[in-house]
Amino acid sequence: MKNTISIGHGGGGRLARDLIKDLFVKRFNNPMLAMLGDSAVFELNGSRLALTTDSYVVRPIFFPGGDIGKLAVCGTVNDLSVVGARPLYLSCGIIIEEGFSLKDLESITLSIKESADKADVEVITGDTKVIEKCQRVKEPAPAGSKQRSEGQSSKNNDSNIYINTAGVGIIEDGIDLGINKINAGDKIILSGTIGDHGIAVLSKREGFDFESTIESDCASLNEIAQKVLKAGSIRFMRDPTRGGLAAVLNEIAEDGNLEIKVDEDSIPVRDDVNGICTMLGLDPLYIANEGKVIIVAAQGDANNILKTLQTDPLGQNASIIGEITGKGKNKGVYLNTAYGGTRVLDMPVDDPLPRIC
Amino acid sequence: MKNTISIGHGGGGRLARDLIKDLFVKRFNNPMLAMLGDSAVFELNGSRLALTTDSYVVRPIFFPGGDIGKLAVCGTVNDLSVVGARPLYLSCGIIIEEGFSLKDLESITLSIKESADKADVEVITGDTKVIEKCQRVKEPAPAGSKQRSEGQSSKNNDSNIYINTAGVGIIEDGIDLGINKINAGDKIILSGTIGDHGIAVLSKREGFDFESTIESDCASLNEIAQKVLKAGSIRFMRDPTRGGLAAVLNEIAEDGNLEIKVDEDSIPVRDDVNGICTMLGLDPLYIANEGKVIIVAAQGDANNILKTLQTDPLGQNASIIGEITGKGKNKGVYLNTAYGGTRVLDMPVDDPLPRIC
Repeated sequence: MKNTISIGHGGGGRLARDLIKDLFVKRFNNPMLAMLGDSAVFELNGSRLALTTDSYVVRPIFFPGGDIGKLAVCGTVNDLSVVGARPLYLSCGIIIEEGFSLKDLESITLSIKESADKADVEVITGDTKVIEKCQRVKEPAPAGSKQRSEGQSSKNNDSNIYINTAGVGIIEDGIDLGINKINAGDKIILSGTIGDHGIAVLSKREGFDFESTIESDCASLNEIAQKVLKAGSIRFMRDPTRGGLAAVLNEIAEDGNLEIKVDEDSIPVRDDVNGICTMLGLDPLYIANEGKVIIVAAQGDANNILKTLQTDPLGQNASIIGEITGKGKNKGVYLNTAYGGTRVLDMPVDDPLPRIC
Repeated sequence: MKNTISIGHGGGGRLARDLIKDLFVKRFNNPMLAMLGDSAVFELNGSRLALTTDSYVVRPIFFPGGDIGKLAVCGTVNDLSVVGARPLYLSCGIIIEEGFSLKDLESITLSIKESADKADVEVITGDTKVIEKCQRVKEPAPAGSKQRSEGQSSKNNDSNIYINTAGVGIIEDGIDLGINKINAGDKIILSGTIGDHGIAVLSKREGFDFESTIESDCASLNEIAQKVLKAGSIRFMRDPTRGGLAAVLNEIAEDGNLEIKVDEDSIPVRDDVNGICTMLGLDPLYIANEGKVIIVAAQGDANNILKTLQTDPLGQNASIIGEITGKGKNKGVYLNTAYGGTRVLDMPVDDPLPRIC
């Protein structure tokens, strides 16, 4: 480890994972945290509950398809949903820079309320802190992107807002997901196209002309998660946010000691997302999503789960993208490329797109 | 309301309260949030649970008697404790500026762990985000204080860290606190000296020579709260953080439609804290505390509760400071001054000391 924190420590890749394992998990030392699940699961008076937290620092705060408020609700609802919990209550802690527009704060609050209603959760406690306005020493930009024009820099010096949501959910009897439940032969299902969120935010931030055509996929997955749980035997679910599909597949392989093979051809990516990625030298497999879920399911149930996904608006582009080809040896993620070869799909080291969620 | 957020919107006074009531409570519109308790209380499968959240933005992050990590645990443990809950689990969301020292992050993590162990809670889920380093446009300073020397300004441009903790606790049967339970004749008990935290942080921030003599009172109140709950009939508890004793008394008066009289002579203040306050034109009644509790208790039980407090190291300077003198009329807080007069003790408008917790 270096002596100071870098942007990559907040990404979805190796740097962040090492920091969490070497510092937080080691220090806090309890089995619930050590699971490194999207939510921690605990028992209380015979009920199984899930607790999760996420801070949102996305920039810009308003982007095609959503804003930081919608993201803060959906992200936390999703972290509860993918452990099989029904989300119930959220807390909301807001840190605002002095000078922040009250009108924007009202829009964000409205967006939180609408997203919470849609996901059938209630924001029952909150906190507001105000800090002094600051001048960013440098702006977040993707690796290799060109400098911003002056007009844009000044726009980017608006006051910032950061939102933390923590969420509590309940897990019904009979639901028990975990990477340790995954077996060789299990299928890997992805609920839809990848990269939409990251590219939508990036396009808005960089002022690309085509920004209006790509929207963030930001959405709450609680309903679709509950549906698929009834459609077949699911071993594990995770939503591919920071670090994208590649990071989640590598986490599964690493923590479950699994060999995973996925077919590039079967991974749904929008043409325009693919185009921008090619242009900027980004790989959609590593780009953040905010309304997608990766499901590892029993082989025999995969088709039924796929059909269930496809009948839901949030899962209409769902696809079986690969399978668990081994347990206990050849740990790693292998991609059968569109050109017929096979390559290792690595864990990202840091993040190609900072401040994306 | 003005059009933009000011530092005072994050304080413990009128500005913050109006923002919360006019924007968040109105918008999120549910009875648990509308209570504006230190924690929200909800029922789940027959258990009564409490959920709370707080973000910590204190500057400097290390101060006499504590650091931002200890504060983040104690503050959330205390918000659960004062609603009568036994704190169980915490989440921890960290936002770090690029360039932050890993050694400092390790110290803070250790401090979180030690404070959690002491309060018998576990940190079971977390999140880390990294943002770009920023140059503060202006530094937090108390109203009317003199400009900082150059040496100090540069020190204050270290990378920042912000910590959010949310907490879940359980409320045992038979415990039911609320401002609506308060009656005329009830006594007001304060668990110890006020102003220590605010003045300790301010002294360190401003580089006052006497900083070493005053320590923050930052401590977890879970044990002492459970003790006093057994010592008599308690109507309501709240910890006087931002806005200090004066803000909490005014919240009680306003939300309960109560007339409150307190005796200035009976309010414990350390001589050195009083001295610095006099020098800087601050009033200790408005300064933040992080290890104190205000208890409203049945008249007949007040002495027993006081004795219970005084046998605990965290309550040895406890004192009965006043009483509820009326319900339904003359709503407000009245201070019998040390000079024999009586004056209205107002709700603060904004915060005399920003970035204090």
